[in-house]
Amino acid sequence: MHAEKYPLISSLSDPRFQQLKSLQSYKRRAATGLFLIEGVRHLARAHEEKAQIEQIFTEPSIFSNPFGQKLVRQLRKSGIAGIRLTPRLYQDLTLASEPQGVGAVIRQQWTDARELRVPHKSLWLAIEAVDQAGNLGTILRTAEAAGVSGVFLLGEGADPFDPVAVRASMGSLFSQRIIRTCARDLITWARDNRVSMVGSSPSGLLSYKHFQRCGPVILLIGSERNGLSPELLDAAHFTLRIPMHGRCDSVNAAIATGVLLFELAASRDG
Amino acid sequence: MHAEKYPLISSLSDPRFQQLKSLQSYKRRAATGLFLIEGVRHLARAHEEKAQIEQIFTEPSIFSNPFGQKLVRQLRKSGIAGIRLTPRLYQDLTLASEPQGVGAVIRQQWTDARELRVPHKSLWLAIEAVDQAGNLGTILRTAEAAGVSGVFLLGEGADPFDPVAVRASMGSLFSQRIIRTCARDLITWARDNRVSMVGSSPSGLLSYKHFQRCGPVILLIGSERNGLSPELLDAAHFTLRIPMHGRCDSVNAAIATGVLLFELAASRDG
Repeated sequence: MHAEKYPLISSLSDPRFQQLKSLQSYKRRAATGLFLIEGVRHLARAHEEKAQIEQIFTEPSIFSNPFGQKLVRQLRKSGIAGIRLTPRLYQDLTLASEPQGVGAVIRQQWTDARELRVPHKSLWLAIEAVDQAGNLGTILRTAEAAGVSGVFLLGEGADPFDPVAVRASMGSLFSQRIIRTCARDLITWARDNRVSMVGSSPSGLLSYKHFQRCGPVILLIGSERNGLSPELLDAAHFTLRIPMHGRCDSVNAAIATGVLLFELAASRDG
Repeated sequence: MHAEKYPLISSLSDPRFQQLKSLQSYKRRAATGLFLIEGVRHLARAHEEKAQIEQIFTEPSIFSNPFGQKLVRQLRKSGIAGIRLTPRLYQDLTLASEPQGVGAVIRQQWTDARELRVPHKSLWLAIEAVDQAGNLGTILRTAEAAGVSGVFLLGEGADPFDPVAVRASMGSLFSQRIIRTCARDLITWARDNRVSMVGSSPSGLLSYKHFQRCGPVILLIGSERNGLSPELLDAAHFTLRIPMHGRCDSVNAAIATGVLLFELAASRDG
């Protein structure tokens, strides 16, 4: 029981616990470049994808999960710092309805747009605004599943390291390239790399089924409430709409992203 | 200020408030056949769609919204019962981050499968299991947007009248036909009405882009974790898969539903 050797923390006011807890706030995540994950599956994925694990934290129930126990032992042997928490403290830290007794502090990984290679048929995604952290995580997972090469996040509004986004991303956060940028730099990057900018808009001129892609493409998604900004709508080479039935004038932003990305992916693969 | 005439409730233990509050639980919703909505937009939609409004409840802030105020006055004049709540009580009842000061108790509307007409090119959806209420609401909204004629819910697990589902459905709950059934009755309905049953499964034989529909179709969606039950997989005439990239073996159930429904809708409309 190697993890027994990690120090045990039982007080809510212990500064080591306070430090973990502070990462629930955007401000502290942004200031430290760290974020929290929870669960055996997420931790195993982070380890496999060589994410930088700063510290793990455990709770007694982890020792009823042989795989989790083995993972903790392995991380501890490789020199990763850790603490043990009492169930009460652990519960205070997690959003999971059935917490798995292990979590970690991970260093955020951002990619610089200048490092990106842009293969001929590559597919990219830019999120201008997203109303809910859960939607952002779902979008990251969907983007990986559709074969997106990298996700650009515009401005400071969307935090992929929000605990709700992390959970919904189901680990895609660790494999996806994420680039923080602004509209102007994105437009420059697309022009320099000859990437077609394709906007999504309920008033788009072209039904999404009629778009013929050619070369690399970046899909631009705006906020669910207000759509894309005028700057990005102007810059887009095409604007696509998803035809709506019934009384709907739109679908959820993650659904629109999924429908459009898989269509773009199929037109590449097909 | 007609709504002033509704009685004011300020105590958490008032039985009229307790009755409202009890509708947050599945058990009480199922026992009474009622559910809660919140917000001016949802209430206006419910009214337009002729949902059976049993009672409205307001909070003082509604009177800073001219449209909301007019709606409340109109409902009151048409004889609908109501109560006024103090801000504290109202806050206790709503999930909204920015509550709008008006809500209602609505009678659940279920459709009997025997009442359904099945036009030649109609598209239907069956949800066998859904892991999150928010996903169910998103699926209802997506189904309306894709032109689905009715949504079958199997078993008791999925409650479209859960407050989280109601919010995510963005009003589609009021226009969509919803049918509660079981796998056996669904299979009988599909056979009797010559509706092709199309399952979604990560191990589906056919990539979803290669399916050629002919006649009415029902898409079958299983739980995100376990997929479709063997009974429905057996009954399906086709099983479709969405090709996955990266390390994903699946996408979120609402995303899969959106991608498949819009593809099926396009092959009907196109």
